[in-house]
Amino acid sequence: MGIENLIKIDKKREEPLYMQIYIQIKDMVEKGIIKEGTKLPTIRRLSKLLGVNTVTVVNAYHMLEKKGIAYSIVGSGTYIGAVNYKFDLSGDVEPEIVDSISRPIGSRYINFASSNPSHELFPVREFKEIFAEVLDRDGGMAFTYQESMGYRPLRESLSRLLAKDGISTDPRKILIISGAQQGLDIISKVLVGQGDNILVERPTYTGAIAVFKSRNANIIDIPVTNEGIDIKRLEEILRKHNIKLFYLMPMFQNPTGVRYSDEIKSRIMKLSREYGFFIVEDDFVSDIYYDSRPTPIWDYSHADNVIFIKSFSKVFMPGLRLAFMVLPDMLLESIQAAKYSSDIATSGFFQRSLQLFLDKGLWDKHTEMLRHVYKARRDFMAECLNNIKNTGITFKIPDGGLNFWLTLPISLNDREIYEAALKEKVIVAPGSFFYLNNPEHNHLRLGFASTNEDEIEGGINIIRDILLALRNENYIQTEPLL
Amino acid sequence: MGIENLIKIDKKREEPLYMQIYIQIKDMVEKGIIKEGTKLPTIRRLSKLLGVNTVTVVNAYHMLEKKGIAYSIVGSGTYIGAVNYKFDLSGDVEPEIVDSISRPIGSRYINFASSNPSHELFPVREFKEIFAEVLDRDGGMAFTYQESMGYRPLRESLSRLLAKDGISTDPRKILIISGAQQGLDIISKVLVGQGDNILVERPTYTGAIAVFKSRNANIIDIPVTNEGIDIKRLEEILRKHNIKLFYLMPMFQNPTGVRYSDEIKSRIMKLSREYGFFIVEDDFVSDIYYDSRPTPIWDYSHADNVIFIKSFSKVFMPGLRLAFMVLPDMLLESIQAAKYSSDIATSGFFQRSLQLFLDKGLWDKHTEMLRHVYKARRDFMAECLNNIKNTGITFKIPDGGLNFWLTLPISLNDREIYEAALKEKVIVAPGSFFYLNNPEHNHLRLGFASTNEDEIEGGINIIRDILLALRNENYIQTEPLL
Repeated sequence: MGIENLIKIDKKREEPLYMQIYIQIKDMVEKGIIKEGTKLPTIRRLSKLLGVNTVTVVNAYHMLEKKGIAYSIVGSGTYIGAVNYKFDLSGDVEPEIVDSISRPIGSRYINFASSNPSHELFPVREFKEIFAEVLDRDGGMAFTYQESMGYRPLRESLSRLLAKDGISTDPRKILIISGAQQGLDIISKVLVGQGDNILVERPTYTGAIAVFKSRNANIIDIPVTNEGIDIKRLEEILRKHNIKLFYLMPMFQNPTGVRYSDEIKSRIMKLSREYGFFIVEDDFVSDIYYDSRPTPIWDYSHADNVIFIKSFSKVFMPGLRLAFMVLPDMLLESIQAAKYSSDIATSGFFQRSLQLFLDKGLWDKHTEMLRHVYKARRDFMAECLNNIKNTGITFKIPDGGLNFWLTLPISLNDREIYEAALKEKVIVAPGSFFYLNNPEHNHLRLGFASTNEDEIEGGINIIRDILLALRNENYIQTEPLL
Repeated sequence: MGIENLIKIDKKREEPLYMQIYIQIKDMVEKGIIKEGTKLPTIRRLSKLLGVNTVTVVNAYHMLEKKGIAYSIVGSGTYIGAVNYKFDLSGDVEPEIVDSISRPIGSRYINFASSNPSHELFPVREFKEIFAEVLDRDGGMAFTYQESMGYRPLRESLSRLLAKDGISTDPRKILIISGAQQGLDIISKVLVGQGDNILVERPTYTGAIAVFKSRNANIIDIPVTNEGIDIKRLEEILRKHNIKLFYLMPMFQNPTGVRYSDEIKSRIMKLSREYGFFIVEDDFVSDIYYDSRPTPIWDYSHADNVIFIKSFSKVFMPGLRLAFMVLPDMLLESIQAAKYSSDIATSGFFQRSLQLFLDKGLWDKHTEMLRHVYKARRDFMAECLNNIKNTGITFKIPDGGLNFWLTLPISLNDREIYEAALKEKVIVAPGSFFYLNNPEHNHLRLGFASTNEDEIEGGINIIRDILLALRNENYIQTEPLL
């Protein structure tokens, strides 16, 4: 049955006839009754069928076009277009992969895809006491709006925390945000516009790509090597393009785990001054080091083109939604305004609680404990992976962070392994997930943050079986072609 | 001393000479040593002074232009421009007014500008118990990432809460957000683009204006009358412009306190269907009614073009940063993605706590108490204002919300009164604050949420004295001209 038979008009109603036609077609499109690409009846045919003037149908179709619901091709007719309410979250990634990767830990799955910390390690007992202490001390004030820049005592405590790691900054330059993702969103609102050239690492964090895309930026990626990014490639890009901003994770890069060399960091800083671009340094896991603490790209007391973002989600508790940025003076005012327009302010109650946690010295104790626990897990996972090297995988043992970055033998495909593992209730992150475009399909990211030793051992063995089976299968499949 | 004497170049350094010049000028601009509009030395003059080739200076100036730091006028020279890192928070408002309006309650000031609830009324004791209960029940799970749409049991409780007020909706369509401001930001990311026509009320909430401006929308305002907006004007605008979205507060409008009539609401809905625009209904204070509960613009079980935002900040505790939206099906996926890219998810811990608060029946008890307390304050403020009618002010007693909207005699200016009151440690919100453009200067918004009876009486008396003094002054000043 054609569309024309579904449209009913009522000449007695006050609503103009063309509106009645427009609304009914629009409704059918939104409900999926009419699909994208459908050709609408000709004007003559519809006007005859409905018993209305051709001008009425012309007006209805015109309205559909004006609203972006239909388009016309001269000499051919009017067609239903794709309704344009899309928000592109990431490049090539199917939603079901995102879903499965973020499947809650503690379910029947062994989750190597998550790089979120084990909730058993959260300092719940300490926070229960701290919450009570904040409420006894501040009462209802703890639940009022916090000033946009953040709770001043927390900003002072954070400044002292940074100082202990040799980073000197001024509490005045610290902005408290609701997680690192919000930091990227706010920075983009101020610095990134239509067509701006933005640099990212290859591979990189997909949440950053999503934000830059939502500002219609032109995103360019630079390969990450063992020492950091490929500096030659950076210089080439800088000569060709006017770059606005470079987003990078020099301290244990995500997903590769690479720690930038001092040489690479200082060359990036030098180039950023020469070519005049902003650097956004994302520190999401520097507290989890197994050798020595990595150093940030710059001393933040001086840099006027570097924004430092430190998240507490990976190391601490994601549910607090707390992070902070250190900002150059020239951006302070505008980024504060952008923060205000994003969510007014971050929860003051959590800010007061974190401040107390820091000031009681609990942060240092907690991160020390985490390093101890995660180092044992890293070592155990390295052992398990070493035992399955006969599958052809290669990897470097990370000296920080919560992930291994595996390289697969060339005959294997990360998505195939992801799917086979999922059937066995093991979740891995396909490496291709982390690429802006033309993804490489020979990597897996395996995280040990959300798994215990039993799960690591069991999960790696399942992966071994899958890798061996797939290699055999591919071997058999391709044999006839040799 | 001219700029040219501050530039030092070093031919032995590896850095190209033009870069050395560029960086030093850029630094001086950013540090404020060179101001906007400054003319740079001529190319010939600078090259001679520095002993470099003219091409070197040309390259340096070209770089400054490329980076938006300088611009050239043919035949005149090169000038320093305004460095373009602005984020426009609102229209006409000076930052110091925003600062003073948001000055913390509890300071030495009587704050009529704030419409934030008194922190003494927050259910702190109840929440302390609920926090402990959530932590005992959920442990570390309470601090993991929450799913982007929100904690499912909370969404179910909210759906039941709405049902009691006669609004039927599906928990599936509810998205938990970090405050209403974030809701507006997320909606804008999906629906508002460069040049889109957006309708707002006149006057309106400035946070909404800031968000739409940040998306480079074309904002159009419609006057609010005693019954709601001016429908004739709406129809005129709809005939002339293709409207994307209408943002409004039909239940106790901010700042006017107007409650829309049923007639106006149904005509707006009808027009929104006919002309195909989205409606964003902001419900920030409907629980604080003194007569009968206001009804929303539409039954959300049916509307496919209406987004409902309900905030808990005004009625409950702003520091929780909790609100929610009811979304039409066609926008669910894209708005969820935009939420994810904004801050991944709202704090799960607060969501779990609010859910428990609702399910224990504490919300109903709390809002009933608030209506009782605020009604008494409203009545007291009405009495005080009635006593100073000799100043020439007029107002309607609001039947909901936390503000009076005063109209001043025509000879008085809201900014003048704001400044005079501030000197006396009384803060009022100048009405002009709430206008998109061409502000009216004959209104004040006086809130009673953050003040007790003593403060109300004292503050209103101070305002009376100011009004009378200014009227006299203006009278005397203008007399010679008569």
